[in-house]
Amino acid sequence: MAFRLTPHERGFYPLFTRAAETIVAAADDLAELVAAEPSGRPALAQRVKDAEHAGDTVTHEIMVKLNSTFVTPFDREDIYRLASSLDDVLDFIEEAADRIVLYRLGTLPGGVAEQVEVLRRAAAATADAMPRLEKMAELQEYWIHVNSLEDEADTVYRRLLGDLLAPPDGAPPADVLTVLKVKEVVETLEEAADAFETVANTVESIAVKEA
Amino acid sequence: MAFRLTPHERGFYPLFTRAAETIVAAADDLAELVAAEPSGRPALAQRVKDAEHAGDTVTHEIMVKLNSTFVTPFDREDIYRLASSLDDVLDFIEEAADRIVLYRLGTLPGGVAEQVEVLRRAAAATADAMPRLEKMAELQEYWIHVNSLEDEADTVYRRLLGDLLAPPDGAPPADVLTVLKVKEVVETLEEAADAFETVANTVESIAVKEA
Amino acid sequence: MAFRLTPHERGFYPLFTRAAETIVAAADDLAELVAAEPSGRPALAQRVKDAEHAGDTVTHEIMVKLNSTFVTPFDREDIYRLASSLDDVLDFIEEAADRIVLYRLGTLPGGVAEQVEVLRRAAAATADAMPRLEKMAELQEYWIHVNSLEDEADTVYRRLLGDLLAPPDGAPPADVLTVLKVKEVVETLEEAADAFETVANTVESIAVKEA
Repeated sequence: MAFRLTPHERGFYPLFTRAAETIVAAADDLAELVAAEPSGRPALAQRVKDAEHAGDTVTHEIMVKLNSTFVTPFDREDIYRLASSLDDVLDFIEEAADRIVLYRLGTLPGGVAEQVEVLRRAAAATADAMPRLEKMAELQEYWIHVNSLEDEADTVYRRLLGDLLAPPDGAPPADVLTVLKVKEVVETLEEAADAFETVANTVESIAVKEA
Repeated sequence: MAFRLTPHERGFYPLFTRAAETIVAAADDLAELVAAEPSGRPALAQRVKDAEHAGDTVTHEIMVKLNSTFVTPFDREDIYRLASSLDDVLDFIEEAADRIVLYRLGTLPGGVAEQVEVLRRAAAATADAMPRLEKMAELQEYWIHVNSLEDEADTVYRRLLGDLLAPPDGAPPADVLTVLKVKEVVETLEEAADAFETVANTVESIAVKEA
Repeated sequence: MAFRLTPHERGFYPLFTRAAETIVAAADDLAELVAAEPSGRPALAQRVKDAEHAGDTVTHEIMVKLNSTFVTPFDREDIYRLASSLDDVLDFIEEAADRIVLYRLGTLPGGVAEQVEVLRRAAAATADAMPRLEKMAELQEYWIHVNSLEDEADTVYRRLLGDLLAPPDGAPPADVLTVLKVKEVVETLEEAADAFETVANTVESIAVKEA
């Protein structure tokens, strides 16, 4: 009786890479949006939304492949979690862009651009790491890097909220409704940074199991 | 030596169904509460709280059965997660009802009733799906449906927050404390919608493993 | 051929105990900070931050040991989750301390001290339970206790938010920016209480699997 070893289904790796590349594009558009005049923002928010839809398509392809593949390269559940956590990042980026437009915000505090810059670096690190999943190569560098980016994001986030809620002495009194709006945006961006960390933690726990 | 195959313990399925039916009842009461005069709300909030307690009892029964059952119909951990996520839905519904009463809110924006209506439909879909867990039948329809309801809830939620924080031109200026209160309620309802999606995702991941 | 049974690596237990003891220390410092004059708070916040760094070191030691240990006392993934959830508790306690200082808050509502008192009791219960993980002894008492502490924390939290957003009749009108600041602190403390419950739920799910 012939015995055939089913090879690992490798088609998952390019899909994870595509998901991460979509995040890179969305983060770039978000950076542009934050720097843009309010009148130019709706068009950029639409581009972020388009990226999010493209990401949904990739997530769906991963799920369909998962349902039709017998031998997966790592635990089915982990494939599921990795796809979901990449999807979450994109959702938060899209939500931040949408809120800036929906709340008709004007010039944003400088810290917001800093938050988005950290997201862009986390996106680049993630897109860089996905192709290395197949060989489980240099993944530790990746998750350590993303964890330290999350620390950086957290520092920016706390300072921003502090300046918003307890403006430095001498600063003009804040309009509370504007404080509320900016706070929502700032918190959504922090959620995006946390979501990148969840992606990294998922990769770490996959690597721990394979060890 | 006789070898006896222990049959799957099937008692879990009716318990999941009961948990979902309790959610249906709570969502119905919440819809009534939202439409009611403020003076009639405390009694309805108490009914939601009673439903939540009934739900806690079911969750407890599931956990006790889990501890005393040797062969479970699917992974112990998944039973645990499904029970917990159903419990979470009920907690958010109860929390929303409690907040409306506690913050002594008057007439709520129309979008709040829309949010609750989506929750009722998600509750009905969930109660419908639970009895099909045993045969793993037509579960994909269920989770696709709940995911699309979550999208709908998200649209209502964003528009509501937008109107709240950046009222349309010509609208009377908002009282910021009222904005804060309504925002808390609206966010709790959105968490309930997300929690329904977590239930659906848990069912999906169970089905993916069994595939 | 000699066959050697690799003994379970027991070094994990003292590390979990140390992590929990660090939480006890941080919660004590936080209680002092809440009761202190604003001028004395920065020094206490620094002590909480130091405890958080000590906790990070323990978490790191657990992860390193996980990567170099072949036979773990329970699922690798559960060790990972338990370490992460203990780490989360400490993060929220540190964040609460930081916010009180950063927002330059004065005297806090009495309910905040009550919240911290519940956290101290949850910390003590957790530190008490960790050494019993090895024998899986009396863990059920622990998680039932922490779940009931979380209920208590939730009651305090809701009443606090209610008083903040809908002050009792006759109370002086609230300064909305102060309401926002206190709300952030109160919510972070509630997240710490929830995080203790996640630790307890993780222990419960480990015990359920071992049953």
